[in-house]
Amino acid sequence: VASDILAALRATLGNDAVLTGDAIGPRYACDATGVAPKLPLAVLRPRTTEEVSAALQVCNAHRVAVLPQGGLTGLAGAATPLGGEIVLSLERLTGIEEVDPAAATITVRAGTPLQRVQEVADEAGYMLGLDLGARGSAQIGGNIATNAGGIRVIRYGMAREQVLGLEVVLADGTVMTSLNKMLKNNAAYDLKHLFIGSEGTLGIVTRAVLRLHPRPAGILTALCALPSYQAVVDFLRHAQRALGQVSAFEAMWNDAYRFVADRRADNPPMPVTHPFYVIIEHAGTDLEADAAAFETMLADAHGQGMLIDVTVAQSEKQARAMWVIREGVAEWEAVVGQIHLDVSMPIGTIGEFVEDCRGRLAARWPALIPTFYGHIGDSNLHVSLAPGTDDAGVRHAAEQTVYDTVRDFKGSISAEHGIGTLKREWLSYSRTPEEIALMHRLKTALDPNGILNPGKVL
Amino acid sequence: VASDILAALRATLGNDAVLTGDAIGPRYACDATGVAPKLPLAVLRPRTTEEVSAALQVCNAHRVAVLPQGGLTGLAGAATPLGGEIVLSLERLTGIEEVDPAAATITVRAGTPLQRVQEVADEAGYMLGLDLGARGSAQIGGNIATNAGGIRVIRYGMAREQVLGLEVVLADGTVMTSLNKMLKNNAAYDLKHLFIGSEGTLGIVTRAVLRLHPRPAGILTALCALPSYQAVVDFLRHAQRALGQVSAFEAMWNDAYRFVADRRADNPPMPVTHPFYVIIEHAGTDLEADAAAFETMLADAHGQGMLIDVTVAQSEKQARAMWVIREGVAEWEAVVGQIHLDVSMPIGTIGEFVEDCRGRLAARWPALIPTFYGHIGDSNLHVSLAPGTDDAGVRHAAEQTVYDTVRDFKGSISAEHGIGTLKREWLSYSRTPEEIALMHRLKTALDPNGILNPGKVL
Repeated sequence: VASDILAALRATLGNDAVLTGDAIGPRYACDATGVAPKLPLAVLRPRTTEEVSAALQVCNAHRVAVLPQGGLTGLAGAATPLGGEIVLSLERLTGIEEVDPAAATITVRAGTPLQRVQEVADEAGYMLGLDLGARGSAQIGGNIATNAGGIRVIRYGMAREQVLGLEVVLADGTVMTSLNKMLKNNAAYDLKHLFIGSEGTLGIVTRAVLRLHPRPAGILTALCALPSYQAVVDFLRHAQRALGQVSAFEAMWNDAYRFVADRRADNPPMPVTHPFYVIIEHAGTDLEADAAAFETMLADAHGQGMLIDVTVAQSEKQARAMWVIREGVAEWEAVVGQIHLDVSMPIGTIGEFVEDCRGRLAARWPALIPTFYGHIGDSNLHVSLAPGTDDAGVRHAAEQTVYDTVRDFKGSISAEHGIGTLKREWLSYSRTPEEIALMHRLKTALDPNGILNPGKVL
Repeated sequence: VASDILAALRATLGNDAVLTGDAIGPRYACDATGVAPKLPLAVLRPRTTEEVSAALQVCNAHRVAVLPQGGLTGLAGAATPLGGEIVLSLERLTGIEEVDPAAATITVRAGTPLQRVQEVADEAGYMLGLDLGARGSAQIGGNIATNAGGIRVIRYGMAREQVLGLEVVLADGTVMTSLNKMLKNNAAYDLKHLFIGSEGTLGIVTRAVLRLHPRPAGILTALCALPSYQAVVDFLRHAQRALGQVSAFEAMWNDAYRFVADRRADNPPMPVTHPFYVIIEHAGTDLEADAAAFETMLADAHGQGMLIDVTVAQSEKQARAMWVIREGVAEWEAVVGQIHLDVSMPIGTIGEFVEDCRGRLAARWPALIPTFYGHIGDSNLHVSLAPGTDDAGVRHAAEQTVYDTVRDFKGSISAEHGIGTLKREWLSYSRTPEEIALMHRLKTALDPNGILNPGKVL
């Protein structure tokens, strides 16, 4: 049967688009999650939407599983092979088709790296609202399929909010081309939302129209020390009211700040003794007027007791030094083998969640080091656990403890990374039986043979 | 059979929640579209989500059509009875359940008037991102079901962008409660988008969590005269770049401005001789600094030749006088029996569309007066036609001519009003056969007996 499928795929796509055996390089078999991969049956590298469609027709007729792959930077395992499937890589379906400056849109093929889309938007005098650390290898199609978040969400929204139009190939090879360029289109159901964030289980994204934003003139950055979680929330709302909006609002609990500061050679920008730290950014249009408004806002917050201390970056170098602390958390995680979790809950409850979660973890594993930080303005908390052991049972139980707490606080087990394979067992913690049943109903309606990325999400 | 259904509904909901015969008031039988209505079999007035669920279970078991009704302010006929169905009015499922200032959310029942939601948000120190003329009677559930637009879209997005969580009752009575309060939640499919804008054909909205925004400190308004459509687009992008964003950008072609100016007793704020007029608004946080930036932006645009003339409102009264012209177009439409169309297309092509459309109309009906205006910053154009006749054939043919042009320009036959009954025959002008087939697949998956608002949208 496998040889029939491969023969049919070679006849349809040509030999060079179908890799098998030793020709399958290691990059197709693993992703950023570090889960031990299994070898796929073949890797397809279609060059056009029509070739994606032809490949899916063959796979659907043979009832063989298809795994779409982008830049392999996902953190939930949605692109990890489970063995024996057909990997469909978008790496050759690449390029910018159009920038429309009047509409403020960019039309891109799915395999285009995020950074390339950003650069072309920039050359046209605009800015893409999506940015994340993996920009150099992440593909825009994967960003859409996983509804990626990142560092600009508080101002511009997630990947979903950037998408105006979408072309998707359905499981049976149907090409659904909805390359809408309008901000408003209420002509019946808005189908694109079905596919955004469905992690390749409902269709394969081949092209998209993304909206562009005006480029800010400059960015103001400050590092603040705060006395309590309530002060963090008050400061967030105060800053948004005073400035209209902020472009980043990253909170670190003392443990996260101290975790990085203790591991660095140089002195941190502030002492490690404060209960909370926030990096706040304001992307403005008039540097002088904006700087004055930014300083007034900070002085008011200080006067009202929300801030214990505050430093405004006087140069890009000083701003980078502040961000190095925030980014250091993620970097050090990799070094010490931490478990990195991505959860969300209503903003007002995050402080209490952290205390509860810390207590449960300490009661069971006194030596485990948890650190808490995140995009608090987006309701997104990252929890890092250094269990101090490679024991898979302990590591799983520690994760379980965090997710138990998330469930009790009515939060989400995934804020921005998705479900993939790594969070499937906990999906019912954040979704009701009715929601999950409806998801299955949609999956069956769109992919009755279950060929699209089986074993993921649901 | 009808008496069986009514008996079952009375047994389930109680007599006072089931209106029949003379007890059905005229408000349930017509809506803002003016289409001649037919009498429904009964009107249900459930008080709770559970009662909505119970009613749908009865109707689904009896395979009887259910028509959800909100405030009856829709403009596409989605809430107009076609005769013999069960109207389900949300008028008693009303009230604000919670304002969460830390999360910046408001949780509301579907029957709550939009204006009430705005007021409660305001009392909490926030602002709802949704506003439209019918705010006093429109219900928030209907706004969500039709993905309403309105006058704040350019800054805050449509109704869809305000919704964080949703409770929906499916055709079989299943209650799907997803009252998410987080800005980020990637725990599998984001189901709410299926129902937003589906005009009651996939489920009935019973509750929602809406996000709130910081209240602006004040609003700056200017009326501008421009030489060409290209100047309108250039000015839009110039203003967004200079100010970060604008909170309204309404363009009027000369015919629309003159149409109102000629019908008013007092002098218009500017002469009627300019090719284009734009009302631009900037909602700021610091009145003094913002006013300076606003005036600089306008002076630059004037210096670069985008503007022929400009007047900045020096008081709220002067700002109102500017808006009266824009709102006058819609008011006068009603007086002269105009046909009001709501279309969208890529922003750069709207100028050419208008010329083409005007030419086609003039060639066939020299006496027909068309006027063009709209939310150009949202890609949304309103086209008004005064055909000078009540002849239904002529009126339909004139509409047809506009939609033919929309199709040629790859636009949408509905920017913000939806499809309802009035635009069904032209849906294929803006959606491909593959898109429409997928919509039917979803409809069948969610409502296999086709009881929810049949005869609408698809």
